[in-house]
Amino acid sequence: RIDGDRLWNSLMDMAKIGPGIAGGNNRQTLTDADAEGRALFQSWCEAAGCTMGLDQMGNMFARKEGTDPEALPVYVGSHLDTQPTGGKYDGVLGVLGGLEVLRTLNDLGIKTKHPIVVTNWTNEEGTRFAPAMLASGVFAGVHTQDWAYDREDAEGKTFGDELERIGWKGDEEVGARQMHAFFELHIEQGPILETEGKNIGVVTHGQGLSWTQVTIMGKDAHTGSTPMPMRRNAGLGMARVLVLVDEIAWSHKPHAVGAAGQINVYPNSRNVIPGKVVFTVDFRSPELSVIEDMEARLRAGAADICEEMGLSVEFEKVGGFDPVEFDQTCVKAVRDAADRLGYSHRDIISGAGHDACWINKVAPTAMVMCPCVDGLSHNEAEDISKEWAAAGADVLLHAVLETAQI
Amino acid sequence: RIDGDRLWNSLMDMAKIGPGIAGGNNRQTLTDADAEGRALFQSWCEAAGCTMGLDQMGNMFARKEGTDPEALPVYVGSHLDTQPTGGKYDGVLGVLGGLEVLRTLNDLGIKTKHPIVVTNWTNEEGTRFAPAMLASGVFAGVHTQDWAYDREDAEGKTFGDELERIGWKGDEEVGARQMHAFFELHIEQGPILETEGKNIGVVTHGQGLSWTQVTIMGKDAHTGSTPMPMRRNAGLGMARVLVLVDEIAWSHKPHAVGAAGQINVYPNSRNVIPGKVVFTVDFRSPELSVIEDMEARLRAGAADICEEMGLSVEFEKVGGFDPVEFDQTCVKAVRDAADRLGYSHRDIISGAGHDACWINKVAPTAMVMCPCVDGLSHNEAEDISKEWAAAGADVLLHAVLETAQI
Ligand SMILES: NC(=O)NCCC(=O)O
Ligand SMILES: NC(=O)NCCC(=O)O
Repeated sequence: RIDGDRLWNSLMDMAKIGPGIAGGNNRQTLTDADAEGRALFQSWCEAAGCTMGLDQMGNMFARKEGTDPEALPVYVGSHLDTQPTGGKYDGVLGVLGGLEVLRTLNDLGIKTKHPIVVTNWTNEEGTRFAPAMLASGVFAGVHTQDWAYDREDAEGKTFGDELERIGWKGDEEVGARQMHAFFELHIEQGPILETEGKNIGVVTHGQGLSWTQVTIMGKDAHTGSTPMPMRRNAGLGMARVLVLVDEIAWSHKPHAVGAAGQINVYPNSRNVIPGKVVFTVDFRSPELSVIEDMEARLRAGAADICEEMGLSVEFEKVGGFDPVEFDQTCVKAVRDAADRLGYSHRDIISGAGHDACWINKVAPTAMVMCPCVDGLSHNEAEDISKEWAAAGADVLLHAVLETAQI
Repeated sequence: RIDGDRLWNSLMDMAKIGPGIAGGNNRQTLTDADAEGRALFQSWCEAAGCTMGLDQMGNMFARKEGTDPEALPVYVGSHLDTQPTGGKYDGVLGVLGGLEVLRTLNDLGIKTKHPIVVTNWTNEEGTRFAPAMLASGVFAGVHTQDWAYDREDAEGKTFGDELERIGWKGDEEVGARQMHAFFELHIEQGPILETEGKNIGVVTHGQGLSWTQVTIMGKDAHTGSTPMPMRRNAGLGMARVLVLVDEIAWSHKPHAVGAAGQINVYPNSRNVIPGKVVFTVDFRSPELSVIEDMEARLRAGAADICEEMGLSVEFEKVGGFDPVEFDQTCVKAVRDAADRLGYSHRDIISGAGHDACWINKVAPTAMVMCPCVDGLSHNEAEDISKEWAAAGADVLLHAVLETAQI
């Protein structure tokens, strides 16, 4: 069994870096706080006897050697970056849970056949640079590195420049590594496990995602002196489209969700009718056909709304992945580990996207989930118990041990 | 008659300060650009033989003496600050039109009985610090100076600190001056004069305004893993309220307008359901009862929408003024001037708020309007012709001359 106190203390130490405003974290990717968090993680890994690899996307790879020099490593990990008002566990548990696996093996003097590598994937959240899971996506060959480098944040800074600036751009070619398997421990970020009183989610699938950035163009004009019939109010167009997004998602209940998280209004002045609004619609479903239907209805519906209002509209797909089915052998290793350890568990579909969803394209992959309070995540109040974290890391340890062979 | 070329050249020179991104201006109040614009205006006034007064709100008063030392001055003016994506004429025409009146009197060697004072009122636009017409409001006793100093911009900087910082806080007590009359020349910012082919609008009334800041609180949560029924989506609540705002305004057609210009979503991340949205609803009408009705229906309707969605909502009135009726003698002076000069004209109700609306409380006041292309304002493409500007300034000259007595 892993050391639940040590894991918890590491989680709390990491949470001191990039504190939020309400008890959580703001450690967005490629900020100074991200660099600080990376340095702390590296120091812990080195203290645990690992060597650190760093690739050209800033992905970190802390390696503990195995007994067989020919064997491909088993990878474990997740991400250390957070939302602007994020929690202390989303991503971090997966990285530090991986580190706890190594520390436990060290304590017990266990040598595995396959090396074990703990990974921190860059920019999983996608909040500063869309899309989410950017660096694991490049690793898996889904995006080119050049394209990733050109992603811009809201201030127009690029991913490539910011990666250089914080000093965490490595030399290693991205995606050159081959993996025996990949395991990611993550909080559920949804309510199912807690509601059903289960310790462990055995993640069999991940639902798919579509991010459509919608730009509505109207005409800046005076809110007082512009008669109602002459208005081309992009803000009102946005409002009508958001109501439509909600209707579309509900029409596929219970297996689809939809909302817009990012909304920017221009020029954003109290007495100017908005001439431009840019917002991103997030649709998800475990079924590809449902995602495609929602995306198509959004485009057609928004076009109709805007045409009727004298607005123009453009769509850009800024992120997306198809629903994922994880590797059955890896999934079984997770389920067997939970059984062996006596933790209650159920199979579950991940509602969120994860680095594992991309890595699944290039290596046998599975995920372990633990509950989180009220299913709340992407919120500073995100919470888990020490016991939940320890159970998740225990299952991770045993799934890894089975796969990496003692 | 005034010198239309000289007026136009001054307008173009002022427009070089705080240029926008699309041919207009971004010379927001109490920015470095505002300070630069003020300095240019002061240099022009001094060259025209005026002395400059400066009060504790940064209001500027360029005085040309009259022949009677006992006579109260006739004031003319408007504002030099602009919207973030504003035009070159909104406000500026009224200030530089006033300066052109003085320059013309100098050219012709005309001495009026009453002194003439050209005024630049601070923060008319209200875009950086709500409410609009802040400094003329303090002058008219509508707001206290302390309250005005505490107004904050989006970055939390206060009006008082920023006024000090740019070096344009004077010693003079605000509102201590008494006025014989006040005249403000302004572009219409609406389509009526251009559509009807009139040179001049004789402004008899100003419509009233209500700015209600609406704060909707939901719960930040993950856009992927939070089931639809568990969501408390403040962004969706905002969307429904914006649709309601539009319905309310149309229900009072044709004499009411409504929209939201400023909308801020938190934490504004693509994969976070908005936990908080703050937006300002702008309702206007020439009838006070209509404004009151709209405001009440907004509050009741938004409360219903939010309650049904599990959201909480708060309202704060961040700006407002009642419909205004201008002084009949001053209005007649404007109408007579237009007649005498042979300019086509019509009586008009101002759709926008103006410093004149507040000054009307403490001095006999009227306004002169000239058309603007497509009724477009609060837009960098705001446009007028040299002839329109000259006609407006001519009427201003003659209304002032009649009131200030040769
Ligand atoms: N796990 C997680 O929150 N990932 C961010 C990508 C997403 O929005 O699903
Ligand atoms: N004239 C003008 O645009 N003033 C700003 C105040 C308002 O919104 O009416």
